[in-house]
Amino acid sequence: MTAAAYELLERVRRQKPVVHHLTNWVTINDCAQIVKTIGGSPVMAHAPEEVAAMAGIASALVLNIGTLTSDFVESMTLAARAANQKGIPVILDACGAGATALRDEKIRALLQAARISIIKGNASEIARVAGANARTRGVDACEVEGDLAALCQSLARTRQLVAVATGREDLVADGRQTYRVGNGHELMTAVVGTGCMAASIIGAFAAVEPDLGLAAACALADYGIAAELAATKSAGPASFKQHLFDCFYSLDRETIGRRAKIART
Amino acid sequence: MTAAAYELLERVRRQKPVVHHLTNWVTINDCAQIVKTIGGSPVMAHAPEEVAAMAGIASALVLNIGTLTSDFVESMTLAARAANQKGIPVILDACGAGATALRDEKIRALLQAARISIIKGNASEIARVAGANARTRGVDACEVEGDLAALCQSLARTRQLVAVATGREDLVADGRQTYRVGNGHELMTAVVGTGCMAASIIGAFAAVEPDLGLAAACALADYGIAAELAATKSAGPASFKQHLFDCFYSLDRETIGRRAKIART
Amino acid sequence: MTAAAYELLERVRRQKPVVHHLTNWVTINDCAQIVKTIGGSPVMAHAPEEVAAMAGIASALVLNIGTLTSDFVESMTLAARAANQKGIPVILDACGAGATALRDEKIRALLQAARISIIKGNASEIARVAGANARTRGVDACEVEGDLAALCQSLARTRQLVAVATGREDLVADGRQTYRVGNGHELMTAVVGTGCMAASIIGAFAAVEPDLGLAAACALADYGIAAELAATKSAGPASFKQHLFDCFYSLDRETIGRRAKIART
Repeated sequence: MTAAAYELLERVRRQKPVVHHLTNWVTINDCAQIVKTIGGSPVMAHAPEEVAAMAGIASALVLNIGTLTSDFVESMTLAARAANQKGIPVILDACGAGATALRDEKIRALLQAARISIIKGNASEIARVAGANARTRGVDACEVEGDLAALCQSLARTRQLVAVATGREDLVADGRQTYRVGNGHELMTAVVGTGCMAASIIGAFAAVEPDLGLAAACALADYGIAAELAATKSAGPASFKQHLFDCFYSLDRETIGRRAKIART
Repeated sequence: MTAAAYELLERVRRQKPVVHHLTNWVTINDCAQIVKTIGGSPVMAHAPEEVAAMAGIASALVLNIGTLTSDFVESMTLAARAANQKGIPVILDACGAGATALRDEKIRALLQAARISIIKGNASEIARVAGANARTRGVDACEVEGDLAALCQSLARTRQLVAVATGREDLVADGRQTYRVGNGHELMTAVVGTGCMAASIIGAFAAVEPDLGLAAACALADYGIAAELAATKSAGPASFKQHLFDCFYSLDRETIGRRAKIART
Repeated sequence: MTAAAYELLERVRRQKPVVHHLTNWVTINDCAQIVKTIGGSPVMAHAPEEVAAMAGIASALVLNIGTLTSDFVESMTLAARAANQKGIPVILDACGAGATALRDEKIRALLQAARISIIKGNASEIARVAGANARTRGVDACEVEGDLAALCQSLARTRQLVAVATGREDLVADGRQTYRVGNGHELMTAVVGTGCMAASIIGAFAAVEPDLGLAAACALADYGIAAELAATKSAGPASFKQHLFDCFYSLDRETIGRRAKIART
């Protein structure tokens, strides 16, 4: 699996997949920049007249409801259906699930209107989508009762998708297996956009690897390794963010081989 | 007052208040990042269906008309009324007041439709809101005739709010007293978003301190100190911006005690 | 021409032109920051009620269709007509031309509805606008057949504007002469927003120099020189971006004189 963590990154660098985003306005630059940094080609486009056409040139679609409106979610639906027709993976970042009724409702609507391949959130967001007793406080805090891994597997099976819960340990459940990724650094929680960027990186990896559970796990491992390297050079959240991009840009096989912490059960 | 400047920052770090923003698209990432950097929890949400619900989890609301549209201001109005009902402070950044008739009109409309707790702008913006003879050139330049402090006090009394005019010296008028904050650095004027971030920081401090004049003055002092520290390490506006975040992240009691320049008259 | 490259930058610093943008949401902060960094005063405003009024205080208008919608292009049209009436230059960044039918259609519509002074894109985007056989893959890749310089000149003459094709060598065609700018660095292609910022810089230079071909060539030379200096200090795309701003901020006559590579034929 350590080998795969590098192999998939190398594939992104070689294939330069176009990753189409309909994402939030807070971190849209970060999402585009991280995709470019790892070798992909980001496209951000949300006009209803062109979202389906963008699927034509894209290899993955990333949806993020961070600053959703009803119109925006309609564009997301059109984009997701076009992506389904083309057979490219659709990643949904359940940003802020549980914070308001609107978010819960729109996530449900998206899950019904199109085939979502991967859903991603922090523990409380994923728990909320899975119907568990969770409370979201803003877009940050997480309080979940019970076994998160079981919750992810249950969500994965019910919805026929890969469920990803990020946190100190990232969990990836594909309905059969669970990947646990131990890479990452606490400074990630001090930077706005690290969660959104995770979805974008997963999108790029899912564009080049049909085993979506493996793709998500490898994406999170590589991202976490870049964060670990960046943390050693940083004086605070802003320098950490800069080093995160720089370190990911030049991440090599040897470093990934030495540091990747992916376990599959 | 120097003690309060640290005490309020410490309170933000401990209480992690959720600061709800309806802000402009230019600096939305900066506003979220600065709130997170000082220990708060930023939420950016503008859909009319959920802005009132967000007040339910928020401890302060920040409005910024930098890239306003009529629809957006309607969402602001809904959010502000919900914040009023909950009794949390509402901060309005009068970004670009005086630049166009639309901005002047929408600021007036917001002031009438809801109770604004704190209004913030540069000298020309605040003078414009106060009805003085001011001219805004873009969002940058300031030309104000007369006594700005008197203008702020008059605005504060007329509108029953705290008026904040940022500049080389920041002025905070609460209708009775005037705070003058001498911290800051000229490089702040070379970075897009420093004004918007001031409003976000004030929002976080106002979330934890009911004396809103004191909250605003302490917020600006701490922000200015972080800027002073950052300037000593910077080679230009971009490195300055990075250091500004990093320095604010680790600002401590001793440094604030030594550097804070807040005078009250 | 080397002298002009510094002279125009100095003029921007002295005159501080207001550059009004209707641009995309991905790089809007970058566009504002680069204009401020070189000494201009950025204004980002897109509400249909105020875009014409903003022309009143602006010295140039920059349009970028990166995240276009139909409504947004209507605001662009209003802004462009107001700019035409006032006689200030209008720069159109043909971001993503050829990627979807919507983009091609809206570019045509803008070219018909108002007088565009300068159109800018990468090779494939400019070729697409010129009607040549080009294919855009996302917003990144370029494949153009034939002589790009001839294509630019043809476009310039047909549309009575200055055509700018950025790339390893930047081409500026004003209908009579062609400028070739040899400055720049490959790391620019690893950073999201470098293309958008080019249009903003051209806008600021066009605000202070009526010879728009010369303005665009000097803008790109100075920008490229800042990139060359930044690259020598950078460990990856994020540190490069930071140094790019810092280096441009303090770019001086001697450095420009020594490094500028502008040829006119």
